[in-house]
Formats: sequence, C-alpha cells, structure tokens
Amino acid sequence: MLPRRGRVRPGADGQRKPQTVALASVRALAFDTYGTVVDWRTSVLAELEGLADRQTLTFDCVRFLDDWKAAYRPAMDRVNRGEIPWTTVDAIYRTRLEELLVAYGIPGLTREEIDALSRVWWRLRPWPDAVAGIRRLKRRYIVTPLSNASFIGMVELARFAGLPWDCIITAENALCYKPRPEVYRTAVSLLGLVPAEVMMVAAHNYDLAAARAQGMTTAFVPRPLEYGPGQTTNLEAESDWDVIAEDLEDLATRLRCQ
Amino acid sequence: MLPRRGRVRPGADGQRKPQTVALASVRALAFDTYGTVVDWRTSVLAELEGLADRQTLTFDCVRFLDDWKAAYRPAMDRVNRGEIPWTTVDAIYRTRLEELLVAYGIPGLTREEIDALSRVWWRLRPWPDAVAGIRRLKRRYIVTPLSNASFIGMVELARFAGLPWDCIITAENALCYKPRPEVYRTAVSLLGLVPAEVMMVAAHNYDLAAARAQGMTTAFVPRPLEYGPGQTTNLEAESDWDVIAEDLEDLATRLRCQ
Repeated sequence: MLPRRGRVRPGADGQRKPQTVALASVRALAFDTYGTVVDWRTSVLAELEGLADRQTLTFDCVRFLDDWKAAYRPAMDRVNRGEIPWTTVDAIYRTRLEELLVAYGIPGLTREEIDALSRVWWRLRPWPDAVAGIRRLKRRYIVTPLSNASFIGMVELARFAGLPWDCIITAENALCYKPRPEVYRTAVSLLGLVPAEVMMVAAHNYDLAAARAQGMTTAFVPRPLEYGPGQTTNLEAESDWDVIAEDLEDLATRLRCQ
Repeated sequence: MLPRRGRVRPGADGQRKPQTVALASVRALAFDTYGTVVDWRTSVLAELEGLADRQTLTFDCVRFLDDWKAAYRPAMDRVNRGEIPWTTVDAIYRTRLEELLVAYGIPGLTREEIDALSRVWWRLRPWPDAVAGIRRLKRRYIVTPLSNASFIGMVELARFAGLPWDCIITAENALCYKPRPEVYRTAVSLLGLVPAEVMMVAAHNYDLAAARAQGMTTAFVPRPLEYGPGQTTNLEAESDWDVIAEDLEDLATRLRCQ
C-alpha cells in the first residue's frame, strides 16, 4: 500500500504551501507520448537527413522539420473547433508533407516513398529512460498512452519502439484532440476508473492542466531537448503537479516501482 | 510475401466449390477472446468450487455457472436493441451474480467478496496454445482482441493471462455488442485498414459470419470443450471460412509465422 505523499511548492505569495495528494489511489498511468516518451525530433531529423543524402539534395532539414511539425497544432485546433471533421494526425502530416516537398523543391519521390516518409511518425526512438521506466511502472499500474496520435500510429509506434503498453488509447477514441476534456474523460471511462485513479504523465504543462481540470492526478517529466537545444517552453513544471520527476525511471522510483 | 491461398469445401449441392482468398493482404488479426483465447468455463468453475469449499457450502457449481453465463447474451441483445443504455458485461455479470447468490442461498459474502468473485471474468486461463500462438502471429501481424468484454476487462485479462496484444479493442469502443456491424467497423477503422486486411479469429460461427458480412477475412478455431464435455454447438466450421485451424499454434503455422 502506497502511503499518501505530500509535495510543497512556493505559493504565489512566496510561502511554501503544503499539498497532500492521494497517490495511493492511482491505478493507471496515461502517458503523453510525442515528446514525453519518444524523441520525435532526433528521429525525424535522422530520416530527413537520410533522404537528403540519398537524393543528394541540400535542403535545411531542421527548418523542414519545424515547418512540418508546425502544421500539427493548428489542424488539431480546427478539428476541436468543429471547422473540419475528424482528421488523424497521420492525414495532417501527409497533406503537409506534400506541400513542403513542393515548397522545398524536393522532386521525384514516388507515392510509396512519400507514404513511407510520412510514416516516420510511427518510427520514433524512445528517450533512453522510457522503456525501462514504463516497464517498471507496469508492474504496479496499468500503463497506456494518451496521445493525440492516431490509434494505429500508437500501435505501430509501440511495435517499433518496444513500448510495453497494456492498451492503446488516443484522441481517435474520442474523435477530438487534447486538451479537449472528452479525450481525458474517454480514457478514464474506458479504464473503468474515476479520474483521480488515473495519473496523466506529460512533458507539457498544458496537458497536465487539462487533465487536472478533469480531476486526474498529474506527473510532470521535463524533456528540455524535445524541441532541440534552443527550447524555451516546458523547461520546468509550471504548477504544483502531484509528482515532478526527472524522467520515467525517476517516476518509477518515486512511485516505488522496483 | 504470403501467397494467395485457396480453400475448397462441399457446396450446398454436394460439389466442391473453390474459393480463393487474398490472405496476403491481411495485416491485423482480431481475436474473439472468451472461448477462443481463454477457457472461461474451467477458470470460473475453479473459483466457484473454491468459494464452496471455503464457505463449506454444497451448491451445484456447474448449474450456478450455467445460470450466470446465461445472463450474458440476453442482456447484450437488449443493449443492441436499444432497450437499455450501454452496459458493460462486468455490470451484467455483477447484477446477475447478486441475484444468483440469493437464489442459491449463498449467504454472508461481503461487498468486496462479491466484487472479487464478479471479477473472476478478468482472471481466465488461456487455452494451452493461446499465448504461444498469439506471440508467433504477432511477429507478422498486429494482434488485438475484438471481444464483447469491457475495455478494462480485456486490459486486466491480458495482464493476468499474459496475452501479448498490441492494443485492446472491445465492444465498449463501439458502445454496442457483436454481432452488430458497428463493432467490426470500429475495429477496422481504429486499425486504419480496410476490412479485408483484418482477419477475425473466432471459435463461434456467428461471429465470423458477422465479420465476413463487413468484408473481413475469417479464421475458425474450434473449441469443442468451451461449454464442457456436452457441447453441441460450434463443434466445426459451418461455412467456408478463409482459414480453418486446429488451434492458435496451428493458425500461426498456416499463416507461416515461425
């Protein structure tokens, strides 16, 4: 039986404010995945650089990736506002990739090659602590992704990266995207639990804020290199999340998973 | 690359009718679970007999189980006809268990004990070939349950029985029960595939007929002892299913999974 744990943080008034949270009630951990579990940036950059080498092209792979990734949030927000019907991130990335290949003057890829490149988002390397940390956490808790990925994207990623999930839950199960409440509620409902029994684990403060608003428990794991060496956001916890861990191995240790 | 396979069966007119199916296109296998993957009868009987021993009761465990199991299909059919709102099989079994404890004069179980007994459906032993067969099939195919179980019920069962699924899909993802088309369509859609790319694997002919009606590929695996030694139904394939295997190891062999 895990004891109740307390955390303290400086309050807005500079006082340290005690907060006690019933971590003992947690039965499942729901992980944001892109950035929190897998290092998408390094993985995608490696494939873009491989493409440039093979095609003897000299395009700015970093800028290409930034432009590609930048399509992600606005398209999800359009789904969430009801401006476009449900569209998977796979389809969002596929459409944007075709535009960028033209914009960067990258010629001659076949449809199959474009498909394969688009699916680089299914072939992302886990952070070094991720598989071992999740494996330890799985001994005590149900472990699931709760990602804005497509369902099949998370299935394929788990197969590629050896992520030992108990199940797959994504935005596609709710047909809208985080931070919409329906995504978190869908996960809690499918798991047959109450919100406090599910801990959202993420490297992004907005995700934890939305999970907490639904009554879920929260754990922050910083990934200061997710966006490369110049990252300026999510470098640290911006609220008194129930657990703040260094990485997923450290989270396992803090939750007493051997 | 798996070659196209053909099967023949006696037609209604006694002629042998060739049928060629593109098994090469299959990318995912969706398994019925209760009966097809796990031996629910022996598992539940063992727990009922343990209860009888502990409480020094003499009730007919076999008849109790038959009465308990008999609540399953009618309640699912009521959900499917829209007579009652979505209700998980866990809730169906829980309600029926309380009725049967009274009917059989089994006294004195606490709420926790009734909860635990009700969740025996999360603690079912796999058939001897199941884990090894699924593990082999997983090397080539995405493997998922497609069960009328609750989502959490399938998650917990996989943890208990060591079923190496890539993901969990159940009737709860569609909020209605097999053989309603929505259940099969939901699985195909979540997997991002077309129906023929998903093979339904089941020990029950009705399940395969419903899957085939949605365009899915089909594999029959007989489980002649699912309902005990007196079983009279589903002893053999009742149609020209795309594959007819002896068990899940044999299915792996027929699909050329080492």
